[in-house]
Amino acid sequence: MENSLFSIELDVRDYECDMQGIVNNAIYQNYFEHARHEYLKSHGFDFHQITKSGVFLVIYRAEIDYCLPLKSGDKFNVTVSLATHSKTRCIFEQSIFIDNQKYTDGKFFITAINSQKRLIKLDSIGLDSLFNK
Amino acid sequence: MENSLFSIELDVRDYECDMQGIVNNAIYQNYFEHARHEYLKSHGFDFHQITKSGVFLVIYRAEIDYCLPLKSGDKFNVTVSLATHSKTRCIFEQSIFIDNQKYTDGKFFITAINSQKRLIKLDSIGLDSLFNK
Amino acid sequence: MENSLFSIELDVRDYECDMQGIVNNAIYQNYFEHARHEYLKSHGFDFHQITKSGVFLVIYRAEIDYCLPLKSGDKFNVTVSLATHSKTRCIFEQSIFIDNQKYTDGKFFITAINSQKRLIKLDSIGLDSLFNK
Amino acid sequence: MENSLFSIELDVRDYECDMQGIVNNAIYQNYFEHARHEYLKSHGFDFHQITKSGVFLVIYRAEIDYCLPLKSGDKFNVTVSLATHSKTRCIFEQSIFIDNQKYTDGKFFITAINSQKRLIKLDSIGLDSLFNK
Repeated sequence: MENSLFSIELDVRDYECDMQGIVNNAIYQNYFEHARHEYLKSHGFDFHQITKSGVFLVIYRAEIDYCLPLKSGDKFNVTVSLATHSKTRCIFEQSIFIDNQKYTDGKFFITAINSQKRLIKLDSIGLDSLFNK
Repeated sequence: MENSLFSIELDVRDYECDMQGIVNNAIYQNYFEHARHEYLKSHGFDFHQITKSGVFLVIYRAEIDYCLPLKSGDKFNVTVSLATHSKTRCIFEQSIFIDNQKYTDGKFFITAINSQKRLIKLDSIGLDSLFNK
Repeated sequence: MENSLFSIELDVRDYECDMQGIVNNAIYQNYFEHARHEYLKSHGFDFHQITKSGVFLVIYRAEIDYCLPLKSGDKFNVTVSLATHSKTRCIFEQSIFIDNQKYTDGKFFITAINSQKRLIKLDSIGLDSLFNK
Repeated sequence: MENSLFSIELDVRDYECDMQGIVNNAIYQNYFEHARHEYLKSHGFDFHQITKSGVFLVIYRAEIDYCLPLKSGDKFNVTVSLATHSKTRCIFEQSIFIDNQKYTDGKFFITAINSQKRLIKLDSIGLDSLFNK
């Protein structure tokens, strides 16, 4: 159910808008990233601590569908859910909404590597506990 | 009194941190700008509408004192007050606090110009109503 | 042939790196956008002028494959080519290389709208002259 | 002499412009930082390596005078010179020019700290060799 998804509320900040008067395309990745990190934090995973421990969560593919443009003054929600893909890969499925109107969809394909750049199984860092949540 | 100042609460977002693990110096200007625009909005002035009407509020000088660094996970307040400088110039005096600890001070010297790049008196656009607030 | 593609050379700037010490994922969209605008300019199309004339080139979908991470000190090339998709849609196909090593692939699906938010045929603004170049 | 100053040439990128159609104030700090790091690199100091070695060069005060606005399509130079202030503090004096027209002045007050957040003498990391250059 849409309603049970993790979600954060954000405001468009004027410096995020470009000469077209709308939020620049790259900024949506900032919104999506911030929501993912807040989602992880809400489940006991601190991105900064994970990074300092020598584990790097990396995006290897991003797909973003821009349906409607966010503008100065807009207040919006960013949802996060996590699907498993394999033992070493998962997908963050995210959307941006204003009320029930969808503005943006994002899919972020994630893997984890250690400081030797070797793939790490997601259950070895406990991320498997998040699947199907 | 510190307590009566306009203030907004923000979170550090991880993408705002650089390789030193702290918020990049330029990002503080984003925080200060967003707080100024929220301050203006709370007093009935919409920066986007002002810009579209052909009036440009421009910063001609910025002074920023970085006292303590903001880090991943910090939640902080940005204050705003406005002092008059002359009929065509004003100064936004701003600070960033966590609890009562000051992290950053900013002074932003502002003037207004029209689309012919001529200075505009601040009372002609109503901004004088904000002084001493 | 790879060699005949339009390409610009850029440097990683340290403020573009995040706490992982590598370029933040969102920044790649900045690189790709800048390369697209330079490509348009090299063919006589100025993005800023197009926008001021009331035509908005908008991305409705982005796909980015992050193969290798860009790091502080890296110098890299961003390529641009344009494929037609329909009378109102085109695709910018772009890559980031260091020497012959691919770092990133990007596909940006573009359409053009006017100030009434109606779709515009790409040949009405001359963009069809760029296809197969 | 102006002519003997260290300088880099940059282009305004469209994503750096905001809804006013000019470069956003915060972005100038990006330009100034990138020029400082290139200046350091040209003298054998790599900011990324310095940071990894546990020494943090930090700005404790910034003063920026915005004289003329940079716009889409502008190509400009950013100069860097370094003045000593005390054994633990130095000042980067920087300007942005197009031809001989000054657009922006920046003064960045720098100190160095170690990972225990103690001040470090600048000559202990060799930075004194840069003064009067």
